[in-house]
This record gives sequence, C-alpha cells and structure tokens, in this order.
Amino acid sequence: MSALSKEFIDNTKRFARVETHNIFNKKINQAQRSEQAQKIYEEVFAPYLLDDGFNIALHPSGKKIDSFEFATLLQEHPKIAFFIGGAYGFGDGFLQKCDYRLSLSPLTMSHKVARIVLLEQIFRGFSIINNHPYHK
Amino acid sequence: MSALSKEFIDNTKRFARVETHNIFNKKINQAQRSEQAQKIYEEVFAPYLLDDGFNIALHPSGKKIDSFEFATLLQEHPKIAFFIGGAYGFGDGFLQKCDYRLSLSPLTMSHKVARIVLLEQIFRGFSIINNHPYHK
Repeated sequence: MSALSKEFIDNTKRFARVETHNIFNKKINQAQRSEQAQKIYEEVFAPYLLDDGFNIALHPSGKKIDSFEFATLLQEHPKIAFFIGGAYGFGDGFLQKCDYRLSLSPLTMSHKVARIVLLEQIFRGFSIINNHPYHK
Repeated sequence: MSALSKEFIDNTKRFARVETHNIFNKKINQAQRSEQAQKIYEEVFAPYLLDDGFNIALHPSGKKIDSFEFATLLQEHPKIAFFIGGAYGFGDGFLQKCDYRLSLSPLTMSHKVARIVLLEQIFRGFSIINNHPYHK
C-alpha cells in the first residue's frame, strides 16, 4: 500500500475503522478476456459483500458526487464495503448485488490510484461530518 | 513525491518529458484568508505560465473529460503546464491567464492526490496516443 493510502487510513482511525483487502489472485491474473475476468471478480469478491451493510461498486456509469454528498453516504451507512474492480470492471451480475454504483471521475484510474482517491474521500468525508479542519 | 507519482513520471519518459515543481513557500503557508491565498498563488505561479505553451488550471468549475479526451489535449498541445492550486483554489485573475480549466472530479482532492491522478492521466494519455497496453 502507498504511504499516502496508509496516511489516510491512520488519519481516519479517530472516526472509523477502515480495512483494505487487496484481492488479486492467480485466477484474476490469468483472466485474459473481459467477460471471463468479470466473472472471476464476481466469484472472488462475493464473499466480501456485506449482508448487514451497504455495498458500493466503483463503476464508470455510477453516480458522480461531490465530497459533501460522499460524506452523507458515510453518515447514512454505518458499515460500507467499497469494491474497486480491475482493468475490466464489474459485470452486471456483481453490480446487481451491490446497493450503489459510484464513479470517482470520468477519467479512468488504475485500481491503485482509485484506492488513494477513495481513501482520501473517506477521511475527508469524516472530516466534514466531524467538522475537522482537513476539509477546509 | 510519492513512489506512485515517480512511477508514472518514469513510465511517461519514453513518450514525453514531465517535470514537476512543488511551489510552496512561507508566503503561501502564512496566507490565512481565501482571497489573500489566491493572490499569493497568482504571484508565485505566474513565472511558470508558458508563453509558448498551453496553460491548464485545475478548477472545480473546469471541464470534466474522460481519459480519451485528456489524451486528445496532450496530442493537440506539445507543451502544457498544469497548475494545481492549494486549499483555496485559484482566483479569477490567474484563471484568466490560463487557456483551459480542467476538473479531475466533482470530489475535492488534496493537491497530493490531484497530482497522482494527473500524472497517471498523463501516462495513460500517452499510452492511448501510442497504443501502449497500459490503458487497456
């Protein structure tokens, strides 16, 4: 994990518990075609879907929201799982199991970059909720 | 600079020269009010405006484009300066000296995160232009 990602997780600790899981295995690595890769993500990510929480998939067709709306998402859902797909994104099967689709930007980001952007938003969101000076 | 930023700059080397300048001085650090900070950014950033190139300011009201449109920007302008403002953004004075306003996302990002997103887009853009596998 990048130092910056670690910094955001550490800074968020006072507000919430953040866990990251890097789910990348041989099967994913070997998936060459788009549909095949999407199917494998679905299999591999399914155990991480929350039964008692809110599941958010990052997806290009997802909602584009600002940092204040992102903070509202955090406030409304005490337990959230964010899913960042690989190069081929998620198929409809997985998307339908999620509660929300979020787009970080119209720009395409690698999962590493998306993770940093997302972790910063989580810290920024809690800073907004708790009136912490970071977001100003 | 983060390892990830360095990685994107190194990977872009085969396509273009990328220089980063971190312009942060005492004056900027001491600027407390928004208008004052914007004025100082303008003074400090002005020497970096390109006379013979295309100046792009990152700004919340800027154009929201995808990675292919970003690649087109790179293709159309052989020399580009990107300006990332601080916590208070840019004032109208500086924005009017730029040729283009770009928004990376409706989400607010720190300048560190914005730099990573931007550097990845520069590499991704050149990958698109040069049909390099990164962007796929």
